[in-house]
Amino acid sequence: LDQQAIQAIRVYEDTLTKPPGSLGVLESIAAQLGGITGQAFPEVAAPKAVVVMAADHGVVAEGVSAFPQEVTVQMVANFCNGGAAINVLARHAGADVVVVDVGVAAPIDHPQVISKKVRLGSANMAQGPALTREEAVQALEVGIAVAGELIDRGYRLLATGEMGIGNTTASSAIVAAFTGQAAAAVTGRGTGLDAAAVGRKAAVIDRALAVNRPDPADPLDVLAKVGGLDIAGLAGLILGAAARRVPVVIDGFISSAAALVAARLAPLASGYMIASHCSAEAAHRRLLELLGLKPLLELEMRLGEGTGAVLAFGIIDAALKTLREMATFESAGVAKGEA
Amino acid sequence: LDQQAIQAIRVYEDTLTKPPGSLGVLESIAAQLGGITGQAFPEVAAPKAVVVMAADHGVVAEGVSAFPQEVTVQMVANFCNGGAAINVLARHAGADVVVVDVGVAAPIDHPQVISKKVRLGSANMAQGPALTREEAVQALEVGIAVAGELIDRGYRLLATGEMGIGNTTASSAIVAAFTGQAAAAVTGRGTGLDAAAVGRKAAVIDRALAVNRPDPADPLDVLAKVGGLDIAGLAGLILGAAARRVPVVIDGFISSAAALVAARLAPLASGYMIASHCSAEAAHRRLLELLGLKPLLELEMRLGEGTGAVLAFGIIDAALKTLREMATFESAGVAKGEA
Repeated sequence: LDQQAIQAIRVYEDTLTKPPGSLGVLESIAAQLGGITGQAFPEVAAPKAVVVMAADHGVVAEGVSAFPQEVTVQMVANFCNGGAAINVLARHAGADVVVVDVGVAAPIDHPQVISKKVRLGSANMAQGPALTREEAVQALEVGIAVAGELIDRGYRLLATGEMGIGNTTASSAIVAAFTGQAAAAVTGRGTGLDAAAVGRKAAVIDRALAVNRPDPADPLDVLAKVGGLDIAGLAGLILGAAARRVPVVIDGFISSAAALVAARLAPLASGYMIASHCSAEAAHRRLLELLGLKPLLELEMRLGEGTGAVLAFGIIDAALKTLREMATFESAGVAKGEA
Repeated sequence: LDQQAIQAIRVYEDTLTKPPGSLGVLESIAAQLGGITGQAFPEVAAPKAVVVMAADHGVVAEGVSAFPQEVTVQMVANFCNGGAAINVLARHAGADVVVVDVGVAAPIDHPQVISKKVRLGSANMAQGPALTREEAVQALEVGIAVAGELIDRGYRLLATGEMGIGNTTASSAIVAAFTGQAAAAVTGRGTGLDAAAVGRKAAVIDRALAVNRPDPADPLDVLAKVGGLDIAGLAGLILGAAARRVPVVIDGFISSAAALVAARLAPLASGYMIASHCSAEAAHRRLLELLGLKPLLELEMRLGEGTGAVLAFGIIDAALKTLREMATFESAGVAKGEA
């Protein structure tokens, strides 16, 4: 990050007609975006896109989700028809929805879907590795390539989204693998399990960890053995955005698991992340702490797709507009305080 | 509130293509707006306005603020010129800023300011009542009248904002008076006091409470003795909006103190309130709990003016759009889960 730009923004913010620091996180975001872009007056980032990585998870065979696997491909169709929550919220935010098939367990042939299928869903991690190391790298590279293409097309702010029945199971497994915590401590309701089903889901994750023994010091090993193609694609998207100095807004639990993989692969990538919300999924707050990120929104959402991330777009725009458009004490003839 | 509309919305929300309840607070807001308007598909509320009640506080003579009193009138000019944070954020939200002089301690003659001055600032509450009971009623009626005029002009969503050097002191005094807590427990940094100055400010509030002995069972008595004209105007605005079944978004600490006065005067008014954010001011979280409101945003803001409230407008619009625009499981051909 450009520390000089950050410092210049911090100084300028204190000349604006408000008590110093009183815009709180808005001031921090403006400074962060200055650090990312190297601009002392960062422009409101546009155009914006949310990238929805879609993939299936073999672990659904263990009964870890309240929804059947075919919902992944059905929801991809819903995204293409504009009827899903992410379509509504992206329209509201003035952002485009980019859907990537990185591993849905059914053929998808739709002009609106970027087809980058690595394989037809991951394998069942309760019985062996979800992916080979090569497949995990391939899915990472899909994300890096998509970020590059979007940035080449002019996008200046990206957000992460996903669709994949079973992907909270993989996300909890990743958190457990990196932290050494028991699965029960980091496993939640996903799309709506009851307490007994959450217990069974945690047991499946413990089994996956015991069978695969992912090495927490080797993020690729964790990603391959207990991750998934959507998560790998998002980790790549984050790395690709950071490498091109484009900020990336992190959605909920699954996106944050991908962000953790990205941060372990390339710690400097964290500076390009903006956490959008803290979801209702049990371990999300812990995951955000691991990332060192503070969420902008707390709306008890637990939908994924990028829905929380695009809601945060409006807050980010607002932060930049206050920096760019507010009067200074001097220009407005307002007396400064002692503070 | 129209319980039938709320129930109809809750049932319909579970037919939309998402796990039941997974849009969290967005689903609750949509239902609340249905209850307020009596519509099963509430329209996105527009036009919107934030009402900035401006007034001065005699208690500033005790040195309770980091900014001098003339900043109130200087900031009113800044609002008229469009250079304050509230102007920037209201433009961002597509909302109008309505400035009301309900008691600034200087003459104001500006075509953009609604002139409703009750008196030239309140008296110093550390020495006697801030206002007479009649003045408090008059300021309440200003707020009720402004709400009525705006609603007659077509506004469908209002927000509270204020400008008045010294008004966190009055707000903390109101919270202390209603709860019986010592001032130290509910007094914060305001525009930026250091710890020693916060201690002096709390001592001033304790003195005001001892001198005036406001009756917590008589909200008008509390409002008159240790409140202020801006706070009374906002309490009236909230009551006026609720009486006309128009939702009102509550900004930060001072607005929430006004909301508490309104709720004590007319408990049913609470159903028409939407809490926008939890500010960095020390006792705001406690105040929101007293109101039974959950804030949408946690951005460590402490600026007032209505800045947090207008930031929440985008979230409220988003909530209504998901209700109105999302596909159902049936229309999208998506399988429902077991949840």
